[in-house]
Amino acid sequence: MEEIQGQSVQADSLNSPKPSIAPTARTRVKRLPKRASYDREAINAILDTALVCHVGFALGGQPYVIPTLHVRIGDRLYIHGSAASRMLGAAADGTPIAVTVTHIDGLVLARSAFHHSVNYRSVVILGAATLVADRAEKFAVMKGLIDHVAPGRWDHIRHPNEKELAATSVLSIPIVEASAKLRSGDPIDDEADYALPIWAGQIPIATTTLTPVADARLEASTPIPAYVSEYRLPANRGARVT
Amino acid sequence: MEEIQGQSVQADSLNSPKPSIAPTARTRVKRLPKRASYDREAINAILDTALVCHVGFALGGQPYVIPTLHVRIGDRLYIHGSAASRMLGAAADGTPIAVTVTHIDGLVLARSAFHHSVNYRSVVILGAATLVADRAEKFAVMKGLIDHVAPGRWDHIRHPNEKELAATSVLSIPIVEASAKLRSGDPIDDEADYALPIWAGQIPIATTTLTPVADARLEASTPIPAYVSEYRLPANRGARVT
Repeated sequence: MEEIQGQSVQADSLNSPKPSIAPTARTRVKRLPKRASYDREAINAILDTALVCHVGFALGGQPYVIPTLHVRIGDRLYIHGSAASRMLGAAADGTPIAVTVTHIDGLVLARSAFHHSVNYRSVVILGAATLVADRAEKFAVMKGLIDHVAPGRWDHIRHPNEKELAATSVLSIPIVEASAKLRSGDPIDDEADYALPIWAGQIPIATTTLTPVADARLEASTPIPAYVSEYRLPANRGARVT
Repeated sequence: MEEIQGQSVQADSLNSPKPSIAPTARTRVKRLPKRASYDREAINAILDTALVCHVGFALGGQPYVIPTLHVRIGDRLYIHGSAASRMLGAAADGTPIAVTVTHIDGLVLARSAFHHSVNYRSVVILGAATLVADRAEKFAVMKGLIDHVAPGRWDHIRHPNEKELAATSVLSIPIVEASAKLRSGDPIDDEADYALPIWAGQIPIATTTLTPVADARLEASTPIPAYVSEYRLPANRGARVT
C-alpha cells in the first residue's frame, strides 16, 4: 500500500502560472514532485478550509506534534494557546517549527495492495514563529480565529478582556517556506493488473456537522442564530477571497 | 478562544482502573491534567478509529510533520512508505520521533470568545522507530494496513510481490511512552457570562464517506463488493477487540 506521500504519480491540477512561493531545499517535494505545488492560492485554500493544523517542534532533541486551531491572515499563519503552554513556550523563542495541514479526501482502492492510496491535500510550512506582542494584532487574531471557526459569531459574544488577553499567547508564522502536496483521482495500477476482476475506485470522504446541541445551562428562550443552525465547516464554505 | 490543549477543565470519562501506560516526564500532560488518560484501552481506541496520524521528526534541527496511514498491531504502531522517503529514512535510524493521532469531535461555542473550544480526542506517542526487516512481519503490516482501511479487501486483491516488498519500508513504534488527551461536552463559561443572552453549545462534527466511484478503467460487469458499497470508516465501525 502506498503511503500518503506515496509512490504513484497523479496529475497536479493546482500548478499554474499564478504567484508562487519559491521552494527551498527543505520544502521542495522530493517524493513524487508531480504532486507538489508552490502556488500561494493553492496553499492558502488548503489552509483556509481546514479547522486544525499539527504543529511540530523539538524540545531537547525530542520532536512533539500537537494539534491546534489556526487562522491565516494575509501571508501569516496564526496559532494560539495558553501563555503557560509547553508548545507555545518552545515555539515562541525563534526555534524552527513545522506546521502541517491535511485534508483526507478519499480512499483509493487499487487492484494490488501496493497501489492502494489516499486522496489528500496537505500543506507543510517550515519556519520560526514569533510571539505577537502587539495588543491590536493579538485581538485581531482572536477575532480571526472565531471568524475562521464560526463566521458571524464574533459580533454576538463577549470579547476578551485584559486578563484573558494576558493569559493567551499568540504565535505568528510567516508563510514563506511552504509547499502543498496533493493526490486526486483514480488508482494507478500496474498495467497487467487492470485485467484482474477486482473492483477498484475511490471512496470519497467528507467531513460534516450534525445538529447543534444547546448547552445544558442555556436559557430555553435563547434563539439559535442562523450561523449556528445553518453551520458549515470551513471545508464546506465557498472560497475566501484574500 | 481556547487552544485545543486548552484552558478550561472537563471531566475525563476514560480514566479508569484498567491497565495503563506509566506517564513519563515527557508524556505526562501538564496543561489540564484532568483531560489526560494513560489507559491503554483508551489510547488504542483513539489510534484504531483514526485513518491517519501525523509523524514528527527532526532533520538537522528542523522539525517536519508528515501525515501518513497507520495501523496498530498489539502494542506497536506501524507506518510505512517508500524505501526512498525522507521521513522513513530519518525516522528509521533510531532518532526520537513523535506520532500524533487526532479526532475532532465538535465545536464548542461559549458565551465568551476566550472559552470557545473544540471537543477532541488525541494521542501522542513518543519513541524511536525501528525498521522492520523481517519479511513475515512486513507482510503482516501490509495486510494490517489494508485491513485497517478496508476490512475484507485483503482477500480480493493482488498481494505484494518481492519487488514491492523491497520498495516499501515499514517502521515499528512501540506504544510505551504515550498519552491520550480529550475534551467533551458543553462549554465551560465564566459564571457571570451564563446570564448573557447568547446561544451556547456544541456543533458535533462527523466524518463520513460518500458513494464509491468506480475506476474509469473498471470493467462495467465487475461487481462492487459489500465491504465497498457498505463501507464504514474506522471511526464509524464497532470497537476492535485486541
